[in-house]
Amino acid sequence: MYSEEIEKVLKKEKIEVGDKIKLISPKGEFKGILMERPELDDNNILVIKLDNGYNVGIRFENGSRIEKIESNEVKKKEEAKFNTKTKSGLPEVSLIYTGGTIGSKIDYRSGGVFMLTKPEELLADVPELENIANIEVNSLMSIASEDMTYMEWQKIAKAVADALKKDEGVVITHGTDTMHYTSAALSFMLNGLNAPVILTGSQRSSDRGSSDAFMNLICSMHAAAKSDIAEVAICMHESSSDIYCSIIRGTKARKMHTSRRDAFKPINNKPIARISRKGEIEYISEYNKIKEDSNNKLRLLTGYEPKVALVKAYPNSQPEIIDYYLSKGFKGIIIEGTGLGHTPVSTLHKEYSWLEHVKNAVDSGMIIGITSQCLYGRVNPNVYRNLRLLSNAGAIYCEDMLPEVAYVKLGFLLGNYKKEEAERLLNVNIAGEITKRSEIDWFI
Amino acid sequence: MYSEEIEKVLKKEKIEVGDKIKLISPKGEFKGILMERPELDDNNILVIKLDNGYNVGIRFENGSRIEKIESNEVKKKEEAKFNTKTKSGLPEVSLIYTGGTIGSKIDYRSGGVFMLTKPEELLADVPELENIANIEVNSLMSIASEDMTYMEWQKIAKAVADALKKDEGVVITHGTDTMHYTSAALSFMLNGLNAPVILTGSQRSSDRGSSDAFMNLICSMHAAAKSDIAEVAICMHESSSDIYCSIIRGTKARKMHTSRRDAFKPINNKPIARISRKGEIEYISEYNKIKEDSNNKLRLLTGYEPKVALVKAYPNSQPEIIDYYLSKGFKGIIIEGTGLGHTPVSTLHKEYSWLEHVKNAVDSGMIIGITSQCLYGRVNPNVYRNLRLLSNAGAIYCEDMLPEVAYVKLGFLLGNYKKEEAERLLNVNIAGEITKRSEIDWFI
Repeated sequence: MYSEEIEKVLKKEKIEVGDKIKLISPKGEFKGILMERPELDDNNILVIKLDNGYNVGIRFENGSRIEKIESNEVKKKEEAKFNTKTKSGLPEVSLIYTGGTIGSKIDYRSGGVFMLTKPEELLADVPELENIANIEVNSLMSIASEDMTYMEWQKIAKAVADALKKDEGVVITHGTDTMHYTSAALSFMLNGLNAPVILTGSQRSSDRGSSDAFMNLICSMHAAAKSDIAEVAICMHESSSDIYCSIIRGTKARKMHTSRRDAFKPINNKPIARISRKGEIEYISEYNKIKEDSNNKLRLLTGYEPKVALVKAYPNSQPEIIDYYLSKGFKGIIIEGTGLGHTPVSTLHKEYSWLEHVKNAVDSGMIIGITSQCLYGRVNPNVYRNLRLLSNAGAIYCEDMLPEVAYVKLGFLLGNYKKEEAERLLNVNIAGEITKRSEIDWFI
Repeated sequence: MYSEEIEKVLKKEKIEVGDKIKLISPKGEFKGILMERPELDDNNILVIKLDNGYNVGIRFENGSRIEKIESNEVKKKEEAKFNTKTKSGLPEVSLIYTGGTIGSKIDYRSGGVFMLTKPEELLADVPELENIANIEVNSLMSIASEDMTYMEWQKIAKAVADALKKDEGVVITHGTDTMHYTSAALSFMLNGLNAPVILTGSQRSSDRGSSDAFMNLICSMHAAAKSDIAEVAICMHESSSDIYCSIIRGTKARKMHTSRRDAFKPINNKPIARISRKGEIEYISEYNKIKEDSNNKLRLLTGYEPKVALVKAYPNSQPEIIDYYLSKGFKGIIIEGTGLGHTPVSTLHKEYSWLEHVKNAVDSGMIIGITSQCLYGRVNPNVYRNLRLLSNAGAIYCEDMLPEVAYVKLGFLLGNYKKEEAERLLNVNIAGEITKRSEIDWFI
């Protein structure tokens, strides 16, 4: 936001961000596109993108005037509507919109990002979608993925279950930061799923000239409309080129790069498939196929116990963190151990040993699961004595499950099952989160 | 350990684990190698490896007898001594032994793992080492890497500084789990380093027939003896084959697999070099070269503030964890955020927003650094509004630094500098931990 003074002038002249303006100030005349104001202390400075592409900041002083030269036409174009007329013969797919970068739009002329109030505006830019499926848009929420909680997971799971009463598949647009947490949660909550549920998003905002939003959306729509994958999966760019998207199991995916379009990688697994913009699917590994059998019923298990924590063990780490969570009434902790699933257990520096704390928590009724911060590979309590000590203290070794997935799973289990059953199921595969055997080409 | 009863009989018969024995029991006669007893409740069961390779457990009952058939010859061989006579013309290198799998040895016949009391026993199996350098062995400690603390880092740093008063380079053998934490700590503590300091270890115990201990040791010794790398680096297998080891900057390395021999990977960087068993070095990226200039003096900075924590932010995570550490007198926290460096800041679910807690901690004098759990890529407070909010609250965005490295660095800075200087230096490169520009081929 600009200062009150500037906003008043802009309102009077009917100037919006993105319009071409002329600023006449004591410093001189400046022509260019009015940009959004970055959030800084001094908001009495106008930011203008000059014709040469540079942005300048010019103080709006006594005697300054602003004139509109030209309205932003790009914005008008965006008001175009997506054609939602149904075409016969096309599959029915719901698009559940939850927010995130893919739900934001860059105004090319101003460079400012704005959230779409109507997701149809995004679809309007992708006419190919009309020929893939009859799409019903559900504007469920508009939340940045870093702000997602289990309450949103529950809402999304319910919306998916509702959609699948009539649709062949579902696409969920989602911010990328925690998309893999959500995909894990949905994988567990949508028990007995018999249709493709595809999460997608975009890593780059479209001002880079290389937005992944459109291709990700197209590939995801193909996957939801006509693949026989009966799983929750993430569909995002496979590489930095625009040839394929990867379809990755929801319990084996992880965002591995802050900004690349191919940030999502399968960990301890291969992708289920790759899919082209034209919808050509190449299956890569085994997956759960859609069954014609109508006994296959979706069971929605949306219980969730939020008093579960994900805690990392590292040199000098304080084992009292376990006691802290215990004292706060937490029911479970997933430890991101080192290597094969170690925490410090030293008798040399007893103050740093986690052993007694883990034992005490387990004895007090807490479930403690062990995963590895290596991410790739499998924890195993049988290799070294120190591992066996933790295991004997009651910690459950979670095989090749990702720490984040084990965390989501434990909250899910405690929210839907009795403690003993939750404990038993933690390292038993229920939604593809644990694989029996690791293969040699699953690594970097 | 076996039961007292069994141990007494073994002692009387002068039988050790690894010896071939005959057990005569009411159940029958069993011939095979006596194995170590796994730690179980019932320790009155003898474990014997039969000739067919299977292990059997047989209860030692009334009327049981044990006879020795043959002593374990492998063990005798291990008593061989490493030739430490100096050869003229070879560089002087110290080998600092700290423990870990590389310091353990498998008895091939018994399958049991035992820690070497004298690291020279390891060297005795690698005669090539004698022709690479005149090696002085320093048995500094024998600690599993999961039990390492800053106190061990300090000890190792001092031992390196001592060794470099006379040696051309140093090799440190170390457990792999936290090797990258130690390599980061040494990178910071050994300020102005002008020699190669190479950490190595082994991922697989040698009973797999594919131990990486020997090749890692040989390549590391070459790197320490004759490379011109004036950095702390990790030297471990480059791939699953035995052709090259990778030399990875100590502040850019991470253990990325629980068990593979090529588990260590550079993150947000390329390796410095690859090196063959014959010592052929192929340099891959820029590095700090040894300077002839004698003004280049090593400054040992071993101060360390252990009241620093590494905390992960994730959906439903409790922001009160910040208050907890503040109340415990902690001086700094590194947050592993999502994506570009987010924590939840939602106003929709205020109880999960980290914003006020971060602001309060910073206002109370704590240093809070932001990294990304993506690992690859770079945090950046300028892309989204939620990032800017955290940054405005006083959190410091740590560029492309790994979370573990930022954690080690913050403890180092607070242990050696005043708070304001520590704060300033956190996101300034001092030991290769921050790179200015990311390159496209630095990803998986």
